[in-house]
Amino acid sequence: MGDLLETLRAVREGRLSPEDAAAALQPSAEAAELGFARVDVERAARRGRPEAIFCQGKTPEQIVASTRTLLDAGQNALLTRLDATTAREVGGALSGEPWHYSPVSRLATVVRNPVARKAHRVGILCAGTTDLPVAEEAAGTAEFLGSEVERLYDVGVAGLHRLLRHLEFLQGARVLVVVAGMEGALPSVVAGLTSAPVIAVPTSVGYGANLGGVAALLGMLNACAPGIAVVNIDNGFGAGYLADVLNR
Amino acid sequence: MGDLLETLRAVREGRLSPEDAAAALQPSAEAAELGFARVDVERAARRGRPEAIFCQGKTPEQIVASTRTLLDAGQNALLTRLDATTAREVGGALSGEPWHYSPVSRLATVVRNPVARKAHRVGILCAGTTDLPVAEEAAGTAEFLGSEVERLYDVGVAGLHRLLRHLEFLQGARVLVVVAGMEGALPSVVAGLTSAPVIAVPTSVGYGANLGGVAALLGMLNACAPGIAVVNIDNGFGAGYLADVLNR
Amino acid sequence: MGDLLETLRAVREGRLSPEDAAAALQPSAEAAELGFARVDVERAARRGRPEAIFCQGKTPEQIVASTRTLLDAGQNALLTRLDATTAREVGGALSGEPWHYSPVSRLATVVRNPVARKAHRVGILCAGTTDLPVAEEAAGTAEFLGSEVERLYDVGVAGLHRLLRHLEFLQGARVLVVVAGMEGALPSVVAGLTSAPVIAVPTSVGYGANLGGVAALLGMLNACAPGIAVVNIDNGFGAGYLADVLNR
Amino acid sequence: MGDLLETLRAVREGRLSPEDAAAALQPSAEAAELGFARVDVERAARRGRPEAIFCQGKTPEQIVASTRTLLDAGQNALLTRLDATTAREVGGALSGEPWHYSPVSRLATVVRNPVARKAHRVGILCAGTTDLPVAEEAAGTAEFLGSEVERLYDVGVAGLHRLLRHLEFLQGARVLVVVAGMEGALPSVVAGLTSAPVIAVPTSVGYGANLGGVAALLGMLNACAPGIAVVNIDNGFGAGYLADVLNR
Amino acid sequence: MGDLLETLRAVREGRLSPEDAAAALQPSAEAAELGFARVDVERAARRGRPEAIFCQGKTPEQIVASTRTLLDAGQNALLTRLDATTAREVGGALSGEPWHYSPVSRLATVVRNPVARKAHRVGILCAGTTDLPVAEEAAGTAEFLGSEVERLYDVGVAGLHRLLRHLEFLQGARVLVVVAGMEGALPSVVAGLTSAPVIAVPTSVGYGANLGGVAALLGMLNACAPGIAVVNIDNGFGAGYLADVLNR
Amino acid sequence: MGDLLETLRAVREGRLSPEDAAAALQPSAEAAELGFARVDVERAARRGRPEAIFCQGKTPEQIVASTRTLLDAGQNALLTRLDATTAREVGGALSGEPWHYSPVSRLATVVRNPVARKAHRVGILCAGTTDLPVAEEAAGTAEFLGSEVERLYDVGVAGLHRLLRHLEFLQGARVLVVVAGMEGALPSVVAGLTSAPVIAVPTSVGYGANLGGVAALLGMLNACAPGIAVVNIDNGFGAGYLADVLNR
Amino acid sequence: MGDLLETLRAVREGRLSPEDAAAALQPSAEAAELGFARVDVERAARRGRPEAIFCQGKTPEQIVASTRTLLDAGQNALLTRLDATTAREVGGALSGEPWHYSPVSRLATVVRNPVARKAHRVGILCAGTTDLPVAEEAAGTAEFLGSEVERLYDVGVAGLHRLLRHLEFLQGARVLVVVAGMEGALPSVVAGLTSAPVIAVPTSVGYGANLGGVAALLGMLNACAPGIAVVNIDNGFGAGYLADVLNR
Amino acid sequence: MGDLLETLRAVREGRLSPEDAAAALQPSAEAAELGFARVDVERAARRGRPEAIFCQGKTPEQIVASTRTLLDAGQNALLTRLDATTAREVGGALSGEPWHYSPVSRLATVVRNPVARKAHRVGILCAGTTDLPVAEEAAGTAEFLGSEVERLYDVGVAGLHRLLRHLEFLQGARVLVVVAGMEGALPSVVAGLTSAPVIAVPTSVGYGANLGGVAALLGMLNACAPGIAVVNIDNGFGAGYLADVLNR
Repeated sequence: MGDLLETLRAVREGRLSPEDAAAALQPSAEAAELGFARVDVERAARRGRPEAIFCQGKTPEQIVASTRTLLDAGQNALLTRLDATTAREVGGALSGEPWHYSPVSRLATVVRNPVARKAHRVGILCAGTTDLPVAEEAAGTAEFLGSEVERLYDVGVAGLHRLLRHLEFLQGARVLVVVAGMEGALPSVVAGLTSAPVIAVPTSVGYGANLGGVAALLGMLNACAPGIAVVNIDNGFGAGYLADVLNR
Repeated sequence: MGDLLETLRAVREGRLSPEDAAAALQPSAEAAELGFARVDVERAARRGRPEAIFCQGKTPEQIVASTRTLLDAGQNALLTRLDATTAREVGGALSGEPWHYSPVSRLATVVRNPVARKAHRVGILCAGTTDLPVAEEAAGTAEFLGSEVERLYDVGVAGLHRLLRHLEFLQGARVLVVVAGMEGALPSVVAGLTSAPVIAVPTSVGYGANLGGVAALLGMLNACAPGIAVVNIDNGFGAGYLADVLNR
Repeated sequence: MGDLLETLRAVREGRLSPEDAAAALQPSAEAAELGFARVDVERAARRGRPEAIFCQGKTPEQIVASTRTLLDAGQNALLTRLDATTAREVGGALSGEPWHYSPVSRLATVVRNPVARKAHRVGILCAGTTDLPVAEEAAGTAEFLGSEVERLYDVGVAGLHRLLRHLEFLQGARVLVVVAGMEGALPSVVAGLTSAPVIAVPTSVGYGANLGGVAALLGMLNACAPGIAVVNIDNGFGAGYLADVLNR
Repeated sequence: MGDLLETLRAVREGRLSPEDAAAALQPSAEAAELGFARVDVERAARRGRPEAIFCQGKTPEQIVASTRTLLDAGQNALLTRLDATTAREVGGALSGEPWHYSPVSRLATVVRNPVARKAHRVGILCAGTTDLPVAEEAAGTAEFLGSEVERLYDVGVAGLHRLLRHLEFLQGARVLVVVAGMEGALPSVVAGLTSAPVIAVPTSVGYGANLGGVAALLGMLNACAPGIAVVNIDNGFGAGYLADVLNR
Repeated sequence: MGDLLETLRAVREGRLSPEDAAAALQPSAEAAELGFARVDVERAARRGRPEAIFCQGKTPEQIVASTRTLLDAGQNALLTRLDATTAREVGGALSGEPWHYSPVSRLATVVRNPVARKAHRVGILCAGTTDLPVAEEAAGTAEFLGSEVERLYDVGVAGLHRLLRHLEFLQGARVLVVVAGMEGALPSVVAGLTSAPVIAVPTSVGYGANLGGVAALLGMLNACAPGIAVVNIDNGFGAGYLADVLNR
Repeated sequence: MGDLLETLRAVREGRLSPEDAAAALQPSAEAAELGFARVDVERAARRGRPEAIFCQGKTPEQIVASTRTLLDAGQNALLTRLDATTAREVGGALSGEPWHYSPVSRLATVVRNPVARKAHRVGILCAGTTDLPVAEEAAGTAEFLGSEVERLYDVGVAGLHRLLRHLEFLQGARVLVVVAGMEGALPSVVAGLTSAPVIAVPTSVGYGANLGGVAALLGMLNACAPGIAVVNIDNGFGAGYLADVLNR
Repeated sequence: MGDLLETLRAVREGRLSPEDAAAALQPSAEAAELGFARVDVERAARRGRPEAIFCQGKTPEQIVASTRTLLDAGQNALLTRLDATTAREVGGALSGEPWHYSPVSRLATVVRNPVARKAHRVGILCAGTTDLPVAEEAAGTAEFLGSEVERLYDVGVAGLHRLLRHLEFLQGARVLVVVAGMEGALPSVVAGLTSAPVIAVPTSVGYGANLGGVAALLGMLNACAPGIAVVNIDNGFGAGYLADVLNR
Repeated sequence: MGDLLETLRAVREGRLSPEDAAAALQPSAEAAELGFARVDVERAARRGRPEAIFCQGKTPEQIVASTRTLLDAGQNALLTRLDATTAREVGGALSGEPWHYSPVSRLATVVRNPVARKAHRVGILCAGTTDLPVAEEAAGTAEFLGSEVERLYDVGVAGLHRLLRHLEFLQGARVLVVVAGMEGALPSVVAGLTSAPVIAVPTSVGYGANLGGVAALLGMLNACAPGIAVVNIDNGFGAGYLADVLNR
């Protein structure tokens, strides 16, 4: 809190006007208020990455307004969990913007300002073809934030040789995102083969006693290999975001 | 690891070229990569049975491509959890192949090479009419793999005499698959009446406190009669596969 | 509510004093208050059976006081879930009373007034030897309340012939209490063999996926045979009580 | 087993032909086999009430065939969980039969032979209007089996006076079926006010932490008043069936 | 119970007729019976607020009839969980009444008699835009009952500064309703910043391990800050009702 | 934020020294740091009530140090979940202080400064004798904070007349704390009889399907009567604290 | 049922006495009744293996009596879940018998008649050292029943090379028992490497989100590799028994 | 796999003997086998950090043997979940070694070779004093592996100012480990205030609906702020290990 005293002394000594001091001391910009939402436009400054817009359960109007607020603040926009029908409406309303939508990952992006690419790579693995949407959500998020992504898909533990052929992939990555449903065993096996940190993403893929992904989640939380941490079921966005944070 | 030394000596002595040795020492054929999938074409060799294609959550294009990969590798194809609409598309795309689809079991098969039939039989029981789709998935899988299947359906424990009239069925089978929903009591009762191993399959049949099949699953896991093992809820495929493995 | 008007007219006409009318109209006797407890001494009149004293988590002093209140009201006392150590203390404090304690069922009784025995019988079955304490709690409760009890123990479904030799037992009872742990399959099987109502009692006997009796409870709730209703896990008292109610 | 010896002696002495003895000793009629089902036509004899046909998950053809089998065996038919669309098809196929369908209870009946009415009455209560379908399933089942039913609906514990005005209803019934969702408190309160046995039926009515009826189920299992037993969530049929069994 | 004796003496002394005494002593008005429902018209008198009509799972006819019963008893009507389609039908049938419907909160009101407005205010916060329907259900309910409501939306803990700018909002309210899904952390944080009581409302907003709102519910129940109590998942009505009770 | 500018202008104008301004602008007193703990001594100012010390899992030394910190800050101390053995040690170390410990509620208090007593009363009910420790924890907490408490114990719904005799208790209280285990039905019934707000406290009293109090918790969350909010299982402290907040 | 007619004709023709016919037609030997237990001495004949005595929750007297009953029937005895203290008592009471007890597996055996050894071997793997007691229970059970057992312990998936060095072990076994706690991933990996059937045994090893073994259980039920079936948590006995059944 | 061909050519050309080639090609050192365990001595090479010894459920002999194996392989040893009693035995057996044991974290270390200290710091926060053992397990693990650790304890969200005074702590750390029980809200709040990655550790601290830490776990998995990943309940070791991996 030495800064505070310093600022106050500058005010006293006339080096700083009270108005400028107030602006400096107050939390900077107000969150942009939209009535139904307060877009956290400061987040890019505070946390180094802009707020993403979680679209599930929102109207196209709400999504468009939030997106415009981010763009007006000079930031790029990432929209997650955007279904194809709503995407058409939102994309239409934002025509003229550099809009991109992927129906597989359900991500949309509006990138006005190219992001600096990072030196290292994020490796993303998934156990089966049906885990692909979640894996792509992770990949698209990390790429939006500036990471290079390398993919290794359909390497579930039922056919271990598919994974073992790619040890250099596992050992060379800066950080690994491992996506798996059913029993969620892939992160344990992967973590045992590499010194890179592993972000494990359980998916709701499966049926019956998979309990909507809870089986995979529990499996990953109980992984016998250290060096693993877990995000929510089907949370590709969270994994991609954290992977980019770790990719430094 | 004597084989390794042997191979290396053959290389030294010129009996084997380095290239041939490398091919022999490396994990043999690459899994067939389709971009979104790596069909485990080696599985037939490694495990004695080809990989089945789990269709839930996949597009018709993905399913057709995976099926063709198996067929191109000279194997038969079993497709599970294939709904009727997708089946029509996939079957159309594979016209000319010996395609067979059952809307009850939701299994499709493409059998180019007849499989040797096994000497013993697999007995498949179910507790009620509504368990039939799961029982038929087990039956169709075991038949695809070469087992003869004998069925005994709708013999739930509420009318025990229906079961007790068929003791020779129970005692004569090489392995029994017992499918039941609700309280899942049938495997316990059956196992108490036979020396054959029992594969218990809980189904999601029922309502309320059946918890989507968890009640039946727990019942079977806690069966007071030994000689029982359990597969996932509604996992007729897994039960039929294991029954064929045990039918030797 | 014709009675009310009738009473009021009797008051008006001098046939009944206001004080006597008040006594008649007010809820009769006050529950006997002990500070920490209000023994429901009216229950015998209202429900036909006296309140039982649930001893788990109570001090010997509290138990003795509650018991004396019942006895003072001219009723017999049934104490449930009374461990052996506390029983010694309580029994000592009540010396002189016709005290009886069973360490297996953990029931104690003080019967000053013999209860009329009922004409019909309650049949109590259990699946295994370790279910015995719960079965005996049911038996002791029903006997305390005036029912004759017939027992058939250790007839679990893993050895069905043990049960089938006793069809007349099943078919002759007025009501059946069926006690089972593990998968809890016995009530389904029993109900399929009799027209008597079945009270199913899950027990916490077992381990692992029995989840402390929840597996048996779910099994019984999902029983495919109608004519069954279920009480709480290990609730022998509730089953014996209800069996006596049904034994008319 | 004295009967067996007696029968054998009658055979030896020529009083009984071997063929007649075999018929007498064998379990009587075979369950009527329909390929996909074994209708338990003996059940009426063995258990005093015919098998009901659980229609959920069955095709109209399966339902019609099972119904005809019961009718051909001289029994009445009760069809449960029959949705309106399927009911139209099944009712059409059975035109000419005394078909009755209730869209509220989702029960259909075909009563060729009037059932003797019982002397006592079954009381059915429900806590709220939305519990009505389950209460009516219980009522319709008990009526089909020969019981008179008296209804007392929308008497949830949030307005206790609605219940307390009907103490004579509670105290006069032979057996009470109490249907409630949400917290499932009604059976406890009712049981404390009557000496009649209470069959508690939890419903899936509610939202959020009602967990699809599990909250009400747990509430009823833990009822502090004895004299209660519980059936599965939404199981009006089971409750009505058991009520008729107890109504003797 | 002095009142009873007093009344009886008045009867004896001729100051009160037996008929009037009976009317006074009996529970006053009968709940208005509609066959399928007993509208608790006394509730306004007994509890100070009229019964609300929970519309989920009810037919338009049932809803209209219940609403008319309340109106006929001179009360205002609040209808909850009313979807837009049913609202159109019910609103049409009640044309002429001061009908108001909000598709966001799914509340409808018919206010014939303006309610006295309270002196203090209820503060309602929500964590994200998707929690808005539940927050508005709380707000609409409290306003219907006479409270002024102040809203502060989209102030989730991921951007704490959005909340910290409004400390006077938190400290000045009479009672706070805090609505949040996902991890449900907002009530803990809010309660730590104010002396006002906090009613926490978990929502089902989120996915995967949110378990339909159970995660938020558990979070709120385990809040480390005292001064919080919790209502059911998505129960905006219950929170708004209790907030109005506390707003005195 | 006008205050900030005002302060800065005072600094500029020499009316306030930079040091004093810094002290005014900074969060006031530092939380008292003990190495292992930061006692929130400001809480009394910020929230109107001092921090309580949760003793479970802490060493006597840690408890004594935290207590002294509160006392040194001129506050009274409330210690919760303090077992008898630890209480003896802590009480010994604090000899000379006005120490009071209750083994039933497991609360200890050190009250140096008498708290002003509030005008209204908190009513505390419990369903059974075994709920007493939790009810007393609520009572002791509310009394420590300045509320008068009236108790009504052992009035569970199995004997409703015990409760109905005390309607004036229910209707006269400013706020009611209702403590119940097993099915947790008492809050619903109580809330239906009063206009006072109800704080429901589930207890872990019971066995089997009570699931350690989860059954009672779910029952209370799903209460059909509005005007109820719920705290954690066995959380008498939280209920007493909130009751005192509401008792104004 | 041709046999029945045949027998009856023999009776008629005097070839068979009624008494002998009765003995032939009746269920053969009575289960040996001990009051508290009915030892299923027929089981060896009916199912090919004698009943095992589950000792948990039984008194030493009960265990000794059940053991003697089996021995008297000419069978060997296997006692499971026998703690060391009880084992001393039981072993003492059976002095003179060929008693053997293992404190690791908690199995005791009394083998009077050597069992024929089977030609093939059962392979038993476990993931970690703490899974050893369960693995040894499986091993001891299979050995008691006549199987040769080969062990491969501490080969969890965190260090895959430990497993991959033993491919011939995996591929050569007749049946594999795979024991694992925590995430329970080992069976999936093993099954992908062999054509032998895999019996998966989840253990309660671990902590936190392992939920007492439920995490491992769910992982195994959702295994992506077919050819696996699962037994109850910590059920080494069941796995060893089934392994011996499959070892033919 | 170019290395393989290269090696084979060297063999062919006589530059490498077959024996040396075999040694190079084979997985290098065998895991050190101890009968009951296979210590993964290669792990330090493969993953950059040595295997830790999880002591829960192991005998002192097993722990000592595993420790010696690591030491003999030239590595340092970290022992986790070692209770004080066992620690005394193990420490005694290893006298002469640089043994250090902490009863708070239950970690023991034997560090023969000092580890290079890393440039950056790991920040470890915990919400309350009772979370300290888990936080210290994380801290001790990270320190053992070479990280500097800075601690900030008892900064739960109930008194937010305690945390907000340390923003520079949050913003300056390379990686943050955030330990919290109860509702587990701290990681969300922390992640919203920093760009550092957050490893969230739920603890089992709390009671009732905390469900042994599951409430905190779910809260953390559903955190609304991105940049968080979660480890198992009470898994301080896993968090400290991963923090050291990320601290590069």
